[in-house]
Amino acid sequence: MAVAELVSVVAVLASAPAADAEKRVFNMTIEDTTITLVGSQKFHTFAFDGQVPGPLIHVAEGDDLEVNVENDTTLPHTIHWHGMLQTGTWQSDGVPDTTQPAIQPGETYTYRFKAEPAGTYWYHCHVNVNEHVAMRGMWGPLIVDPKNPTDTDKRVTKDFILMFSSWDSAYADKPGYGGVPGDVADFFTINGKAFPDTQPIRVKKGDFVRLRLIGAGDELHSLHLHGHVFQIYAKDGHPLPAPIQADTVLFGPGERYDIVFEANNPGLWMVHDHIDMHTVNGKTPMGGIMTVVEYDEIPKDQPFYHWAHKQFVPDFYYEESLKQPLGLHENPAFKGTPAP
Amino acid sequence: MAVAELVSVVAVLASAPAADAEKRVFNMTIEDTTITLVGSQKFHTFAFDGQVPGPLIHVAEGDDLEVNVENDTTLPHTIHWHGMLQTGTWQSDGVPDTTQPAIQPGETYTYRFKAEPAGTYWYHCHVNVNEHVAMRGMWGPLIVDPKNPTDTDKRVTKDFILMFSSWDSAYADKPGYGGVPGDVADFFTINGKAFPDTQPIRVKKGDFVRLRLIGAGDELHSLHLHGHVFQIYAKDGHPLPAPIQADTVLFGPGERYDIVFEANNPGLWMVHDHIDMHTVNGKTPMGGIMTVVEYDEIPKDQPFYHWAHKQFVPDFYYEESLKQPLGLHENPAFKGTPAP
Amino acid sequence: MAVAELVSVVAVLASAPAADAEKRVFNMTIEDTTITLVGSQKFHTFAFDGQVPGPLIHVAEGDDLEVNVENDTTLPHTIHWHGMLQTGTWQSDGVPDTTQPAIQPGETYTYRFKAEPAGTYWYHCHVNVNEHVAMRGMWGPLIVDPKNPTDTDKRVTKDFILMFSSWDSAYADKPGYGGVPGDVADFFTINGKAFPDTQPIRVKKGDFVRLRLIGAGDELHSLHLHGHVFQIYAKDGHPLPAPIQADTVLFGPGERYDIVFEANNPGLWMVHDHIDMHTVNGKTPMGGIMTVVEYDEIPKDQPFYHWAHKQFVPDFYYEESLKQPLGLHENPAFKGTPAP
Repeated sequence: MAVAELVSVVAVLASAPAADAEKRVFNMTIEDTTITLVGSQKFHTFAFDGQVPGPLIHVAEGDDLEVNVENDTTLPHTIHWHGMLQTGTWQSDGVPDTTQPAIQPGETYTYRFKAEPAGTYWYHCHVNVNEHVAMRGMWGPLIVDPKNPTDTDKRVTKDFILMFSSWDSAYADKPGYGGVPGDVADFFTINGKAFPDTQPIRVKKGDFVRLRLIGAGDELHSLHLHGHVFQIYAKDGHPLPAPIQADTVLFGPGERYDIVFEANNPGLWMVHDHIDMHTVNGKTPMGGIMTVVEYDEIPKDQPFYHWAHKQFVPDFYYEESLKQPLGLHENPAFKGTPAP
Repeated sequence: MAVAELVSVVAVLASAPAADAEKRVFNMTIEDTTITLVGSQKFHTFAFDGQVPGPLIHVAEGDDLEVNVENDTTLPHTIHWHGMLQTGTWQSDGVPDTTQPAIQPGETYTYRFKAEPAGTYWYHCHVNVNEHVAMRGMWGPLIVDPKNPTDTDKRVTKDFILMFSSWDSAYADKPGYGGVPGDVADFFTINGKAFPDTQPIRVKKGDFVRLRLIGAGDELHSLHLHGHVFQIYAKDGHPLPAPIQADTVLFGPGERYDIVFEANNPGLWMVHDHIDMHTVNGKTPMGGIMTVVEYDEIPKDQPFYHWAHKQFVPDFYYEESLKQPLGLHENPAFKGTPAP
Repeated sequence: MAVAELVSVVAVLASAPAADAEKRVFNMTIEDTTITLVGSQKFHTFAFDGQVPGPLIHVAEGDDLEVNVENDTTLPHTIHWHGMLQTGTWQSDGVPDTTQPAIQPGETYTYRFKAEPAGTYWYHCHVNVNEHVAMRGMWGPLIVDPKNPTDTDKRVTKDFILMFSSWDSAYADKPGYGGVPGDVADFFTINGKAFPDTQPIRVKKGDFVRLRLIGAGDELHSLHLHGHVFQIYAKDGHPLPAPIQADTVLFGPGERYDIVFEANNPGLWMVHDHIDMHTVNGKTPMGGIMTVVEYDEIPKDQPFYHWAHKQFVPDFYYEESLKQPLGLHENPAFKGTPAP
């Protein structure tokens, strides 16, 4: 990836007015990778660059992207760039037997398309999606910065990406199987981790926070934030004409919602899926899709606080990566190990 | 049905200004019917006029409808006209033991009501809905043309109806059973067929396309269209005051969404349920709720295209029927065979 | 509770201009309680004041609330006041190990917070929500009257609260267990009762009706009202900027929708979950989440009407309680018996 990132960084540095489209070249691999969902629960994935979620692809609206994808697994795959218009480039849409033959093991395929529209997008495999997307971690975020940011865009001081997924542990070590009727999802994750192995969302009073929610797995989620009214600001990358005030947002697979809120209420505030079953790890309660918004103003060493001494990983919600120059950003927090 | 259609056609021909309400009389039967979901997977249904979905009822806002329903099965049924106001005609609402006694085998019942409001509606049985609606195909589309079409209505050049349903094959040949907790849906269909036995949605550059999505079965769907931003234009027949731009729309049983988009991007574009499990046929991936928007401008004999030589059925999404004079339209594409 | 209610009533009587905030003190207990869902199907719950749903807490925007909660069960609990801002009072948010230690058996905990924002809210336990909220009835309504009612608020003549939940009968007498992957919900209730043991919603022509829908359990619901177009007016307590016309509304756990409609169409009109599986009681069809809007103008002794001689319970949807002075209102209709 180092080369791709260099190309990208150079492109940014050399850039003329922001309105000009950049050509950006990225290389990605697909690798048999073992990740850990929570505690000792491991899962065999087909991971982009060996991480789940995949690396952040962060580009500007109108950029010309070229992505070379090398399949290092033993099964066929593709990449679909969910929501990209692909105007004039339908053969880069990544659907096996519709827009291309699948990428066979050992092969490389090149996708070329313009980054549009702007907003919160994602990429994922389109082969046997019932297994590869629903249960093998084959997804990552694709953020396209708008040419003309809205006032809301400009207010954002803290930007976070949350990808939601579910897993059936019966298939943890059975790649090529699963994702069939009768399966029972028993682990539920944000960015590939279940509580208490998720990370806090750290803000300070005065921040204007955006959570980019991406339904990457195969379950619905009814995400509830405590202590704040948020605005459901954008759906599928597109600002809503009439944004909605809410404390809970329901979304399904493939949908994205950008929600925004003012950090004006210091405290420790739970964020969790209100589909209660999604807050277990196997049969153990108080796990799954839960995290906490931690205000800097609140001491974290509250005697009762389960995360009083949590080791903080700043880039867990891609917050650090999103501040980097445009490009492809791998994330050590999501790296697994080569699967046997 | 020939008589009913004749009556209807005559009514249209004889019509004075469009604003006048027509009296339209239709006759329908309910028949034990075997349909094929995909491949060799058959299912015993209670089918309106022996087809799943049922015949299109296409009328004008304000029309006075009379529907004579003959129950030729061995179980009781009714018809509920989902979303019709039934102002002053609550006894034609079709709910057993609330608005009428159920129609017993061999009996006929007559429903009389005014077609209002305008928009995308549907009809279905209201007896034992957990089985009859969720798993026996007892539903069909009811489209009410508006007296005052909106600008969006007027732009539509291609109009398609998609009814979504799921099935548990364990009950395929057990009419009178199923639709109970613990069931596992393992087949998922658009207009009663699963991929690859669905049909393409054919458009040409310049078309303005409306997909009328109807949640007829018992599962949610998160429908994703590739290569386009669509507008979520109407819910339950009613234009949204603030239409939403999206690439994915989530809907539940009973809901309808009209989505519209400009066909401005020639290609082969997947349309599918992003609830990945809904893209299997039993345990076989790449089935279920998937189809392809095919542009006329794109040659279909792409070497990799799974539908390169697909036999095209023009009325599969009621496109041809919707262009016919108002009335009841049976559809040979959906006819089954008498069940044993 | 008598004392708390007296305090509350006195507060109201003594109130200066309505804009002034009142201090309101309530006492609640949590009790092992057996309720009856329908017929002979009982369920062991952890019930607020021994009832499911819990007592109505009805207050005014800006009121200062103090709630003393005594845990009389054998398991730890808390109360989360879903949607309350808790500005400056994060330690009253009710999340175990995040904002407080859980309330142990025999202990009492006091929550203090301001009632804001206005609208339809609810309270529930936040310990082991997969069991306690999803299947043990630990929820009740919290209605905050707005300081500045909207025109729609002012039009309401009939106000109803409907809390939706699901249950897995396998755990009916196994408190401390359940709410884990693989469970199968087989009973589905409105305010803790399944059809035909639900109650009618009684209106008269000319009423302006509000249904406050609260997703309290762990399933989604796709609620359909016959014979009317309703307006989806508010989500999570907040009026929508562009209210939506509909006949069906989909909502998930934790979400609330206020829907309103003019009672302008006398009849007997079904209201039910269009997720058909949610209209069974165990394996018996025509149960679960179903009720009927009964107009006063329509004689109820229709020969076919299953509820021709139904014993009417006026406060089943809290309609009577909502007319009482602000305060905490227990509801005899929801009382269970002490669990063994």
